[in-house]
Amino acid sequence: MPHGTVQTPAFMPVGTQGSVKATLHRDLEQAGAQIILGNTYHLYLRPGDQLIARRGGLHRFIGWPHPILTDSGGYQVFSLAGRRKIDEQGAEFRSHLDGSLHRLSPESAVDIQARLGSDIAMVLDECLAYPASRDETAQSMERSVRWAARCRAHFRQVLDAGAAADVAVMNLGQAQFGIVQGGVFQDLRDQSADATIAIGFEGYAIGGLSVGEPIDLMYSVVSDTVRRLPEDQPRYLMGAGTPEDLVECVARGIDMFDCVLPTRNARNGQLFTSEGRINIKNARYAEDDGPIDPACGCYTCRTHSRAYLRHLYLAGEMTAGSLNTLHNLTFYLDTMRRIREAITLRTFDKFRQEFLRSASRLSPNS
Amino acid sequence: MPHGTVQTPAFMPVGTQGSVKATLHRDLEQAGAQIILGNTYHLYLRPGDQLIARRGGLHRFIGWPHPILTDSGGYQVFSLAGRRKIDEQGAEFRSHLDGSLHRLSPESAVDIQARLGSDIAMVLDECLAYPASRDETAQSMERSVRWAARCRAHFRQVLDAGAAADVAVMNLGQAQFGIVQGGVFQDLRDQSADATIAIGFEGYAIGGLSVGEPIDLMYSVVSDTVRRLPEDQPRYLMGAGTPEDLVECVARGIDMFDCVLPTRNARNGQLFTSEGRINIKNARYAEDDGPIDPACGCYTCRTHSRAYLRHLYLAGEMTAGSLNTLHNLTFYLDTMRRIREAITLRTFDKFRQEFLRSASRLSPNS
Repeated sequence: MPHGTVQTPAFMPVGTQGSVKATLHRDLEQAGAQIILGNTYHLYLRPGDQLIARRGGLHRFIGWPHPILTDSGGYQVFSLAGRRKIDEQGAEFRSHLDGSLHRLSPESAVDIQARLGSDIAMVLDECLAYPASRDETAQSMERSVRWAARCRAHFRQVLDAGAAADVAVMNLGQAQFGIVQGGVFQDLRDQSADATIAIGFEGYAIGGLSVGEPIDLMYSVVSDTVRRLPEDQPRYLMGAGTPEDLVECVARGIDMFDCVLPTRNARNGQLFTSEGRINIKNARYAEDDGPIDPACGCYTCRTHSRAYLRHLYLAGEMTAGSLNTLHNLTFYLDTMRRIREAITLRTFDKFRQEFLRSASRLSPNS
Repeated sequence: MPHGTVQTPAFMPVGTQGSVKATLHRDLEQAGAQIILGNTYHLYLRPGDQLIARRGGLHRFIGWPHPILTDSGGYQVFSLAGRRKIDEQGAEFRSHLDGSLHRLSPESAVDIQARLGSDIAMVLDECLAYPASRDETAQSMERSVRWAARCRAHFRQVLDAGAAADVAVMNLGQAQFGIVQGGVFQDLRDQSADATIAIGFEGYAIGGLSVGEPIDLMYSVVSDTVRRLPEDQPRYLMGAGTPEDLVECVARGIDMFDCVLPTRNARNGQLFTSEGRINIKNARYAEDDGPIDPACGCYTCRTHSRAYLRHLYLAGEMTAGSLNTLHNLTFYLDTMRRIREAITLRTFDKFRQEFLRSASRLSPNS
């Protein structure tokens, strides 16, 4: 990509507002992050895509010189914004910050991301709540395909026009990914995949999963959908998941992931370890001098005990969030590194078995 | 000291609850911190000095292998705790956390700090609000002297008894500092200094300043008091101050400082620079691509623009607190390093003039 190589399978920490919560860029780099995700909805509202373009684009504005993927803004419009109206043209919504009125269309989602200058831009798609009926899902999927075609046409126009367009294009090497929708209905997924591939993108994402459906259903939709996507282009599962999900979906062919789980859970005191999850709030850790995870080499595990981290959490210290996030992101990124290594060494099946056995040793609330 | 050498004059970042707010230990070390301060009141209430002693003392508990100074707990009892009663024996107070009833005496302040195992322990003194009458100040100062004598006697007993005592002594090389009180009345300051020196401590602090008195009055009390204190022992001005205060009080003979100003102001968006203070919230920085301080080499200034830091602050990102604190602490610690260098090179007078001229260039609200 224009800002560097990303080894796949890859996990992308979520940098919602131009910052991965509670984490300095330096610590992301040290933890092994090669690409982060930025949320177009948040950055569009504050500080604004125009301001970011005047600063030279998102990479320069936030001081992250490595690859960035931006979403289309659609997911937050559907989940966070107020009083939204969706029609064929796009979405009208009110800002969750100040109630101001905005419109997001397939074309403006392309424009905003061109100004941000991310390495990978996503098409605008319609996001359905789970569960949705087959009819609703079909209609929504078809609209998403029509939007994808508009996004692609506009993307080609804007990128080809370059600086000459009325949109300041901050990254002429930007790629654009299509998104396969269709809920849990495999024939709709197949139609969506075929139509999206027919439009033609640099990569393909699977959207609308990890929204509350049973885990086995998610795995089976991933299995059946990923098979239809070109093997020589990146395949990205949006918004997933647990460490086990990463391993299971890599086994099914997924190359890219993003998820707030490691960062959000860290701030709530839930930590991922090689032996499963622990909740640092738990009284059992009050006098525990061991590290979060004896198998982890992160700064938090090298320096601090569970007893200290529990104290920081209970005392409400900001460093609790920083140290916990550093550990959880290291755990996720290290898991991806180990997956890549196992794939190279052709030992992935063995790795997968052992990983799932260890991870299930502790209950989610221990 | 038992945990390393501290070059003076020194600034001690405040690690209230065993953590300098929003700052990882690694970043403190990189910024040049050689010693930090821990608050006995907070650590006694949570997680408890007994628990910390069972973890091997404060250094091991928090993972900071360098020197630590602890205060006596008195200041927070007088400023933070609920429904306090003070008599000759000590203070009775209710925890600000859960309302539970506690007592702090000269002897128990020694015991708690012995369990924490700090490198420097402070005597318990009575803290008066400013302004206070001459009579109030005299009586309080005299009580503080009586408490200092009890603290010293108990300290010698506890340290000599070592592990054999009913108090687990975590640092047999612990030093104890006396505190000179007397408000803004120089004859009371003189009496307090003489009586405290007569008791005999490893170092001497000036307490009860930087509590709201005019700055010139503070400087003149420091000048007149420091002169009476032994030149060959550390002289510590408690709770001060601005960068200008550090330079001015070093000029008067002070060797050690602590203050929450760099850390607290950072979290409120107020940043110290070589050209004075700036408030990063200010609209004028919205499109400012320059660093906080072009003369600063900290990670924040090397990596991020004022525009980005303003965005993080307005967006409520935790990284705003971390990055701003990193800068402010670097500014403070770098100022101390430059002061030490100037003293060594015998150019301190010149340094002082230039520092004060630059620092006053920007108003406090720019």
